[in-house]
Amino acid sequence: MSQTYQQYLKEHHEQHLEELFDFLQIPSISSLSEHQPDVRKAAEWLKAELGKTGLEHTAVMETKGNPVVYGDWLHADGKPTVLIYGHYDVQPVDPLNLWKSDPFKPEIRDGKIFARGVSDDKGQVFMHIKAIEALMETEGELPVNIKVLFEGEEEIGSPHLAPFVEAHQELLKADLIVVSDTGMPELGKPTICYGLRGLCGLEIHVKGASSDLHSGEYGGGVQNAATALVELLASFHDQDGRVLVEGFYDKVEASTPEEKEAFAKQAADEGQIQAQLGVPALFGEKGYSYAERTSVRPTLEINGLQSGFTGEGLKTVLPSEAFAKVTCRLVPNQDPYEILSLLKKHIEAHAPKGVTVSVTEFDKGYPYVTPRKHPAIQLCGKAYEKVYGVPVTYTRGGGSIPIVAEFDRILNIPVVLMGFALSSENAHAPNEHFHLENFDKGIQTICTYWNELKTLPLS
Amino acid sequence: MSQTYQQYLKEHHEQHLEELFDFLQIPSISSLSEHQPDVRKAAEWLKAELGKTGLEHTAVMETKGNPVVYGDWLHADGKPTVLIYGHYDVQPVDPLNLWKSDPFKPEIRDGKIFARGVSDDKGQVFMHIKAIEALMETEGELPVNIKVLFEGEEEIGSPHLAPFVEAHQELLKADLIVVSDTGMPELGKPTICYGLRGLCGLEIHVKGASSDLHSGEYGGGVQNAATALVELLASFHDQDGRVLVEGFYDKVEASTPEEKEAFAKQAADEGQIQAQLGVPALFGEKGYSYAERTSVRPTLEINGLQSGFTGEGLKTVLPSEAFAKVTCRLVPNQDPYEILSLLKKHIEAHAPKGVTVSVTEFDKGYPYVTPRKHPAIQLCGKAYEKVYGVPVTYTRGGGSIPIVAEFDRILNIPVVLMGFALSSENAHAPNEHFHLENFDKGIQTICTYWNELKTLPLS
Repeated sequence: MSQTYQQYLKEHHEQHLEELFDFLQIPSISSLSEHQPDVRKAAEWLKAELGKTGLEHTAVMETKGNPVVYGDWLHADGKPTVLIYGHYDVQPVDPLNLWKSDPFKPEIRDGKIFARGVSDDKGQVFMHIKAIEALMETEGELPVNIKVLFEGEEEIGSPHLAPFVEAHQELLKADLIVVSDTGMPELGKPTICYGLRGLCGLEIHVKGASSDLHSGEYGGGVQNAATALVELLASFHDQDGRVLVEGFYDKVEASTPEEKEAFAKQAADEGQIQAQLGVPALFGEKGYSYAERTSVRPTLEINGLQSGFTGEGLKTVLPSEAFAKVTCRLVPNQDPYEILSLLKKHIEAHAPKGVTVSVTEFDKGYPYVTPRKHPAIQLCGKAYEKVYGVPVTYTRGGGSIPIVAEFDRILNIPVVLMGFALSSENAHAPNEHFHLENFDKGIQTICTYWNELKTLPLS
Repeated sequence: MSQTYQQYLKEHHEQHLEELFDFLQIPSISSLSEHQPDVRKAAEWLKAELGKTGLEHTAVMETKGNPVVYGDWLHADGKPTVLIYGHYDVQPVDPLNLWKSDPFKPEIRDGKIFARGVSDDKGQVFMHIKAIEALMETEGELPVNIKVLFEGEEEIGSPHLAPFVEAHQELLKADLIVVSDTGMPELGKPTICYGLRGLCGLEIHVKGASSDLHSGEYGGGVQNAATALVELLASFHDQDGRVLVEGFYDKVEASTPEEKEAFAKQAADEGQIQAQLGVPALFGEKGYSYAERTSVRPTLEINGLQSGFTGEGLKTVLPSEAFAKVTCRLVPNQDPYEILSLLKKHIEAHAPKGVTVSVTEFDKGYPYVTPRKHPAIQLCGKAYEKVYGVPVTYTRGGGSIPIVAEFDRILNIPVVLMGFALSSENAHAPNEHFHLENFDKGIQTICTYWNELKTLPLS
């Protein structure tokens, strides 16, 4: 054929953006039950798109939760098989008033696409589809065998994906998995993430009197649920941000000398990070750099809390209820079930007087470190370098993709974390965006990677 | 005339309830700006009602905030002049889902009227109007001179009433003030409150990064606004509820032996109070009984707090902002301005690292103790005893009516706190209600008091 995939992508750039915008307009928020129909709509949309590229066996496959979208192309005889993973569900959008444009009406400003999910992870899912399309349209075939698996529950901890993978091991059999749900530190600095933090957490609920009370009549007489919650939450950290839950750090590994060296190099960026985040100072566990604290150290964060009267003005009420959502990011050797039980023991030991404390667990995920010397990862680095023209960096990420450790456990094949998001693109926050530069280069990097992978020695 | 005021009240009972319901249906929430028109509507409604009773010079008088409603009847030559104070504004209603009936659609259940403001303070305001009406309709005149002054900003700390009183000293000149905005501990136990706690408070705002962050990417790297707020708020109390703000208790007076004796008698009720409130245990400053802690001891309460994601499910966000509303109830000799400055000093000294902390002050009120041996108060006790048939009790209340200390300061006349609410009637909380028994007996007590007051020696 006369046209290269690069030319094809250039020619269809506007059309591809329009299609991406269609996808982004579906408010597929997995944590809010009222958006369940939207989540399904996004799955159906994806299935249709996969079919158009020439993938076969495309299907919306049921789980006990949101469906999985599958498709494959298995005609590259003797070549490796890649399983591509991504997710089509997105985070909630509140506080909505902080968005400069509607989170579900995508807009391009300053070379960036603004929309919920564009960076995490719909944009990256879409890029894989367009890479397949470009190769199929220009070459008529793919250089490797491809299976795609897009889920709709990543943002709520992938509760039903591991059972799905367990049940479909033959269908999902592959030589490697490529997960595009991570990123690079800044534009022009391609990065392969080789580690993810695990996740566990709970909602803490404090109950005092049977209803809110007048703070004048009752103030001083009974425990205030907000005060009790605050006392309990404050017991989790010292003033430098070190977690005080007994046993929390026991199994955390020290960094290797190689990692220490890499962290030392990144320390120079701390002033810039501080300015970019708009904080009066960076903050966290003593003796560890910002880069260490956000990747190889575990954390315990309050994600939200509420009690009593939070409206305009003053209401002199003594709140009867208070709650907080708390999650931990875990590092290798920390077991989410074990950490959760340490947390619960801590809560029991520190439960304030005069109130009842109860907890609800969130879903859990194991931490994971990929085999960074594996040829599949090295070839991915080569693809990045060809497109971006600079050497690729290897780092461990602070985020969690719970299913990654499960893929490893169930399918026992290497996971390549090939991501194009920037950490400054407000994933999970208002004004999420994605750089057009990485959208374009990312699709090319994917196409390049599939071509490189042809040479992967098969086991 | 042949009809007594008692007969008149009995005959017009239904009609009076209907009128009260009209009044209660106006959502005159002073702390919410969208209810400003309702606040004014309540003022106009009151003015019209006052006019119908035969009061003269009725007027809705402007202040820099919500208006004051005034009226008088000054034809009892040589008799004392009473200034009646109450408020027609009400507290917000959230959490609305905990109300068993619409807060602004009054309903009678089990001998109680349910509606926002019925106990605090519209019901009591209305009772004064009906007492005047009953006496005028049956006697053609009042036994004493009466001035009424109803304000619309009590629930937001009466920010504009003191200047109004300052500016209208001649108009408001009287021999005593009767304030009906307090209550009795239970049905059939008439009580004269002779002390009120003062009030001061502030909203604390914590700001971290310029927007919410992904707790995976950034967790451990920067201070979490919710964690910082929690650390700061936890520094306010020890685990027994004693306030740790330096100097907070310095000027608090010890109880008199007489008061100690009264408190000792009330200690027997603590089991009952605990059961009624539904708490696993009563709670507060060590060495003080429940009754002491809720009346003669100062408090610091969190009225509300919020940060991050508080919706359904989980959002792994690192909140950039957090706020809390905090108020103190103050006892005699504590100056709200001084306490507020101690609070601000404490906040500055305990401000967590890595965030910016700012505060906004709420309005302030001084504590107040009335001259309980004054004949005006003794005659009020006599009126209660005549209607209720039991001896009256004297207690100090835990609530705050900031304007009371101001009346004393500006007008320099005794304040009689004559209240008919029960502390269990959910003022400021869902399902606020008022007992019909106290509604009926209260109006009679007021009529009786005016008759008793004829004998008050004039200075």
